[in-house]
Amino acid sequence: MEYTPYKRHAYYYETDKMGIVHHSNYVRILEESRVDFLTKVGLPFTVIEDRGLMIPVLSVSVEYKYPLRFDDEFEVICEIEKFNGCKFSVKYTVNNLTTGKLSAVGHSSHCFTDEQLIPVRLKKKQPDIYEIFKCYCTDGKEE
Amino acid sequence: MEYTPYKRHAYYYETDKMGIVHHSNYVRILEESRVDFLTKVGLPFTVIEDRGLMIPVLSVSVEYKYPLRFDDEFEVICEIEKFNGCKFSVKYTVNNLTTGKLSAVGHSSHCFTDEQLIPVRLKKKQPDIYEIFKCYCTDGKEE
Amino acid sequence: MEYTPYKRHAYYYETDKMGIVHHSNYVRILEESRVDFLTKVGLPFTVIEDRGLMIPVLSVSVEYKYPLRFDDEFEVICEIEKFNGCKFSVKYTVNNLTTGKLSAVGHSSHCFTDEQLIPVRLKKKQPDIYEIFKCYCTDGKEE
Amino acid sequence: MEYTPYKRHAYYYETDKMGIVHHSNYVRILEESRVDFLTKVGLPFTVIEDRGLMIPVLSVSVEYKYPLRFDDEFEVICEIEKFNGCKFSVKYTVNNLTTGKLSAVGHSSHCFTDEQLIPVRLKKKQPDIYEIFKCYCTDGKEE
Repeated sequence: MEYTPYKRHAYYYETDKMGIVHHSNYVRILEESRVDFLTKVGLPFTVIEDRGLMIPVLSVSVEYKYPLRFDDEFEVICEIEKFNGCKFSVKYTVNNLTTGKLSAVGHSSHCFTDEQLIPVRLKKKQPDIYEIFKCYCTDGKEE
Repeated sequence: MEYTPYKRHAYYYETDKMGIVHHSNYVRILEESRVDFLTKVGLPFTVIEDRGLMIPVLSVSVEYKYPLRFDDEFEVICEIEKFNGCKFSVKYTVNNLTTGKLSAVGHSSHCFTDEQLIPVRLKKKQPDIYEIFKCYCTDGKEE
Repeated sequence: MEYTPYKRHAYYYETDKMGIVHHSNYVRILEESRVDFLTKVGLPFTVIEDRGLMIPVLSVSVEYKYPLRFDDEFEVICEIEKFNGCKFSVKYTVNNLTTGKLSAVGHSSHCFTDEQLIPVRLKKKQPDIYEIFKCYCTDGKEE
Repeated sequence: MEYTPYKRHAYYYETDKMGIVHHSNYVRILEESRVDFLTKVGLPFTVIEDRGLMIPVLSVSVEYKYPLRFDDEFEVICEIEKFNGCKFSVKYTVNNLTTGKLSAVGHSSHCFTDEQLIPVRLKKKQPDIYEIFKCYCTDGKEE
């Protein structure tokens, strides 16, 4: 399944005194790209909200390779690595398009919950969303 | 009325590629000091929330004098400049305690509203909060 | 002089517990739009840097009208309001394109300096940049 | 080796529309506590800088347990988990002191470099810093 990766330029206020994008901002960039990815595969935030779903973050990790600098253009490629019908994890590849270098690799894990933060089994409760995730998950794991 | 000004050190992640605290962060520092000031004069956030009040920001401005750098200690002195029973404005003096220089002067204006964002006249509805603001307001204006 | 206003969607991490974009983030949005504006009129950051120029922020102010919420699309229209050959001020109109409402109006003032933060008279030192600012300044003031 | 953990309250601007501290801010909180820890064990930023050292972040990860909310007080306990004379990793335990719950567990890895980002062997070049890290490292690994 192909999709157009998320792209933007690094903002001035994202830099730190080393002259590079501060490492904490990558976690924000991952979120931006995840929201963009979910929108592109048919799960815009408005749908998630209308269904009474929440997607809290359980964990996040980033390995930093080559820094982004002010105004560098970058893309983030998202991939659903695991999905068990409730929990899923996303892998992120951040490429610096200005330098051509790999900037960072990230991972985050999440679960679908209702508004009381009770985990939701998608297969039964939201079968269309279940199908989207199954379809985009690269390792094919199911419940 | 005396109170102990808000103090902390500048964080690394607040700096930008010029090596100084990014100008947007001063707006956050003003908020930190305002929350601290309100707590110290008897209006902690829990009280405001329990009363069903909100205090949206109507405007904010900052004049930058001498920059804060990483780890510089600073204080922020808050002063309620105007209060008409519903709206109020706060003046902030940000002093760099590491260099001894004035770092910035800020202003913000706010109003008290209920949870539907309808303005609230404190004198009638929340007389004790009205008294606190009247007492701390440096220009003595009243409704 | 026409240019295409800066546009993007509000990020999730820009919201606060009131469910709206935190007021401090508007100062960052103004910066994003200013960098975009300067690039579009022929002054990308790389040119500014190559000339040994810096453009520190002297002051910033924002009046908040109607909030931006997560994923709302907005545009920012920049206008150089004043320019005296060294100092300039920018007016920003932030329109929420999702709701059609005016979200905020901002102002910032700046000056051109060299790398030692000494003010630079553009007419003499950087006449091409002087011409760009004179051309885009809406009130036509000159040295 | 005992030290006083880093403590502060969660800021309003750190919350997101779920009403909790946004997950990206934990990476900033880890940095704050790491700077505080290094200062307390004898390595304030000024010393690191005077020695011509830099400590870039190689990776960071956070597992989120129970959220921090606005104004919750929290502490962060830092522990040097590994140290090989050049690289080191830090474990962070974020405790919500307002609720008594474990809020998050984090890890970061770093290396000591010179200003050209060339890795530095501390034992030879900065033996006093080497001794500090050896002393505080909980697993006792050495070069």
